Amino acid sequence: MEFIEGVREKAVTEIRQILSGGCEGREVRVNGAVHTIRSMGEVAFVVLRKAGGLVQCVYEEGLTNFDIRNLKEESAVEVTGTVKREERAPGGYEIRLKELRVLSQPAAPLPIAVSKWKLNTSLETKLALRPVSLRNLRERAKFKLQEGIVRGFRDYLLGQDFTEIRTPKIVARGAEGGSNVFKLDYFGKKAELGQSPQFYKQTMVGVFDRVFEAAPVFRAEKHNTTRHLNEYTSLDFEMGYIDGFEDIMDMETGMLQYVMELLGREYKKELDLLGVTLPDVSRIPAVRFDRAKELAAEKYQRRIRNPYDLEPEEELLIGRYFKEEYGSDFVFVTHYPSKKRPFYAMDDPADPKYTLSFDLLFKGLEVTTGGQRIHDYGEILRKMEKRGMDPEDIASYLMIFKYGMPPHGGLGIGLERLTMRLLDEQNVRETALFPRDVTRLEP
Amino acid sequence: MEFIEGVREKAVTEIRQILSGGCEGREVRVNGAVHTIRSMGEVAFVVLRKAGGLVQCVYEEGLTNFDIRNLKEESAVEVTGTVKREERAPGGYEIRLKELRVLSQPAAPLPIAVSKWKLNTSLETKLALRPVSLRNLRERAKFKLQEGIVRGFRDYLLGQDFTEIRTPKIVARGAEGGSNVFKLDYFGKKAELGQSPQFYKQTMVGVFDRVFEAAPVFRAEKHNTTRHLNEYTSLDFEMGYIDGFEDIMDMETGMLQYVMELLGREYKKELDLLGVTLPDVSRIPAVRFDRAKELAAEKYQRRIRNPYDLEPEEELLIGRYFKEEYGSDFVFVTHYPSKKRPFYAMDDPADPKYTLSFDLLFKGLEVTTGGQRIHDYGEILRKMEKRGMDPEDIASYLMIFKYGMPPHGGLGIGLERLTMRLLDEQNVRETALFPRDVTRLEP
Repeated sequence: MEFIEGVREKAVTEIRQILSGGCEGREVRVNGAVHTIRSMGEVAFVVLRKAGGLVQCVYEEGLTNFDIRNLKEESAVEVTGTVKREERAPGGYEIRLKELRVLSQPAAPLPIAVSKWKLNTSLETKLALRPVSLRNLRERAKFKLQEGIVRGFRDYLLGQDFTEIRTPKIVARGAEGGSNVFKLDYFGKKAELGQSPQFYKQTMVGVFDRVFEAAPVFRAEKHNTTRHLNEYTSLDFEMGYIDGFEDIMDMETGMLQYVMELLGREYKKELDLLGVTLPDVSRIPAVRFDRAKELAAEKYQRRIRNPYDLEPEEELLIGRYFKEEYGSDFVFVTHYPSKKRPFYAMDDPADPKYTLSFDLLFKGLEVTTGGQRIHDYGEILRKMEKRGMDPEDIASYLMIFKYGMPPHGGLGIGLERLTMRLLDEQNVRETALFPRDVTRLEP
Repeated sequence: MEFIEGVREKAVTEIRQILSGGCEGREVRVNGAVHTIRSMGEVAFVVLRKAGGLVQCVYEEGLTNFDIRNLKEESAVEVTGTVKREERAPGGYEIRLKELRVLSQPAAPLPIAVSKWKLNTSLETKLALRPVSLRNLRERAKFKLQEGIVRGFRDYLLGQDFTEIRTPKIVARGAEGGSNVFKLDYFGKKAELGQSPQFYKQTMVGVFDRVFEAAPVFRAEKHNTTRHLNEYTSLDFEMGYIDGFEDIMDMETGMLQYVMELLGREYKKELDLLGVTLPDVSRIPAVRFDRAKELAAEKYQRRIRNPYDLEPEEELLIGRYFKEEYGSDFVFVTHYPSKKRPFYAMDDPADPKYTLSFDLLFKGLEVTTGGQRIHDYGEILRKMEKRGMDPEDIASYLMIFKYGMPPHGGLGIGLERLTMRLLDEQNVRETALFPRDVTRLEP
C-alpha cells in the first residue's frame, strides 16, 4: 500500500531564495514562466517570473543543452545553472544557464506586453484580458496587498476574541431592502442574493458575542460609476456588550492600525512596486454629520443643498478638509440622519432624527458604514411599523430580539474601495480581481 | 476635535479570565447573557454565558441591589461581585453577587431549553430555531471548530507560499456545467451562480503560481440527502509547477496535519465539549479507483455493478476497509474514470479511460475532489471537441492555455462535510450554520 505523508522536499530552488542572497555560487534548479527573452546574438537574457519575483538567466550559445530560438515567452520552464551576483540584474543575482527544459508552451504570443513596467492599455482592454494582464508585476501586486488587508482584518479580530462565521448568500430577503437585489428562483421559491450579512451577523452576536465575516455581497445597482461594483467583498464585524457606537470606531481604528503595520512589515515588496505610502492611522478624527457638512461648506464656499444627505462631492470636500486641517486621510462622520439609515439602526435618544452611526471616509470616499443597532424587540417593531414594514416578512431575524439580545453594533467595509484608496487608484475595478459591473459578467 | 485612537481598556473582566484562575478573591465586573436561573429560596444561582464559557453567580437576598424575581433568562446583564474558588461550580469559580444591571431584556421566554447539555429537539425544530438553538454550548462549539478548520487551511497554505484570492460568484457559466446551476438575470444577461471557483483559480495559477480560496459555492441539486447542501463552503487550492497529481495529495495531507494540530492546541475546549477524538493523519493510504472497488467487493462480498462509478454505499465500504486494514479514517482514491470527471481533468497517458485525479474519503464520505488539470491549449480543445463543447462559450477561460500555463492541479474540499465527519454527525445540516437545502431558505 502507498501512503501519503505530507509535502516532500523538492530539489527546486525558489526565486525568492535566490533574491534573498542565500544561493550565490551554487548550482540551482529553478522553475518559472518565461517573462521576457532578450537576445543579443550569442548571448541572451531570459527573465523568469514566479510569485516570488523575477530572476535573470544568462544564455550563452554552446554552453547549454537547448537552442534559445526555440524558446517562447510565457512558456513554463525548469532551468539549471549557477547563481552569480550581478548588480545590473533585477534583484541583484543572475543564473548562468546550463540546462533548460520546457514544461509547457503557449499556442500564441501574448496580446499585450505583460512584462512592461506599466501596462499601456485602456482599462477596458486590461479587464477584458484580465486572465493574462494580471501577470504584470504591478497588476498582481495590488491583489497581494489585498490579501494582506484581509489577513490583517482577520488576524486582528481573532486576537480580539471574535469568531469567524460563514453565512448564506442565497437568502429569502435582503437586509437592506429596496430594489437593488438580484433575484433568483430557488426550487420554486423567490430568493435573493444577500446584499449584506447584516441579519446573520447580528444573529451570531447572540451566540458568540463578537463575530466577523469576509465574503461576497451582491448589489443590483444600475450605477455605472468609478466606485460601484455589483459584487464586492464586504469585511463585516459585529460585536455585543458595547457601551456605544464609539466602541465600533475604536475597534475599526485598532484593526486599521494592525493592517497597516502588517502591510509595512510583510508586504513591503508590493508597496514599493506600487509606490504606496501607508496612511497614518494612529488617530482618526471623528465629526458629526451636520458639523462636517458645515465645515466643508464654510471652507470651500459650498451651499448645503440637502441637510439630510451627503453627496459624493461633499464627501470629497470633507475628506479634503480633514487632510488639510488635521493631516488625516481618514475621518469618521458620525450621527447620520435616520431616514438615510436602515430600520435596524439605533436612533440617537438625544435627537431621533439622527442615528448612533458612522461612515468612515478614506481620502473622501466612504469605505465603511457602521453603527449601533436596535436590540430591544419592542423598539424594532415600532420602528418597522413606522416605516410600513411587515414583521412577518423577517420573523426569523426578529426572533433574536424577542428572545433577548445584548446591546450591539458593527460595520461593513468595502474591501475593493479600501484597496482602491490605499493605492490611489481612480477606478474601483482596478482593485477587483474579476470585477462585476452593469456591463461586465466575464471574465 | 475628537480623535479615535484604537481599542480602549474597559473595566470589564471576561469570563475566560475568571475561569483561567487569575481573579480569585477580587471584585470583578462581568457582562453576559443569563443562561439559567436556579432559585433555592433565599439563595439563587445565576449562570452567565459568553463566548468564553459559563460562570456561576450566587445571589443572596439582602446582599444585592436587585430582586432576583425580576430577572429573566436570556437577559443581557452586567454584574459586580467577588470571585471565589468553588469546586461545585461549572469551571471551578463563582461570583458572589453585589450588583446587577440589566442591559437588555427578552420579550418572551425561549421556545427551547437552550441551556440543556443536549438539545432535546428534532433536527427540523433545531434548524427552524437556529438563531437561538445555536446559543446552546454544544451547538455553537461545532462552528467554533469549523472556524479552526478554515483557519488552519489558510495559515498552512500561506506558509506554503500560496496567495489568497477572491473570485466572483456571479458568473457567465458554471465550471462544472450540467443542469445543477442556479440561474439569474444579470442586467438582461443570463448569469449563473458559481458551482466552483475552478476556472478562476486555474487562471490565478498563471499569476501567483499557488492560490487558495475559502468561499461559498452553489449547486442547484435536487437531492435531499444527509450529505448534500445547495450552498456550501468550498476550500479550494490550486498549484502550478507540479510533478504530478501526487503533489496535490501531499499538500492536502500536510494541510490536514496542520489543521488537526491546531485544533488540538487551540480548540481543546470545543473538542472536549463535543467528545471529538482527532483522527490520525500522519499518513493516508492511497489506492487506485479500480483496486479500491475490488478490495471492498472481495472483503464484503459485494458484486461490482458498474466498474466506472462509485456508489455512496461502496464509498462507505472502502472507508471501512481502510479503517479495518490500516487503521485510517482517511483514504485517497486515485485515477477516477475520465467519463466521471470534468473536461479539464488530465487523462492518464498510460490509460486515458482514467484520469490523474483523486477523491479523499473521510470515514467513507467524499470530502475532497482534486487532480491534475490539462495545461496544453491543443489538448484541452481536443477534449472539449470530443465532448461536444464549444470553445467560444468559455473563451476567456481558454485564454490562459492559449497564452501559456504551467503544469498544475488542485482540489476542492467541502467544509461542512469535513466538519460533519470530524464530529461524527449524521447529517451535513448539523455543521452548516444556516443550511440551504431543497426546502430550506430560512433562517
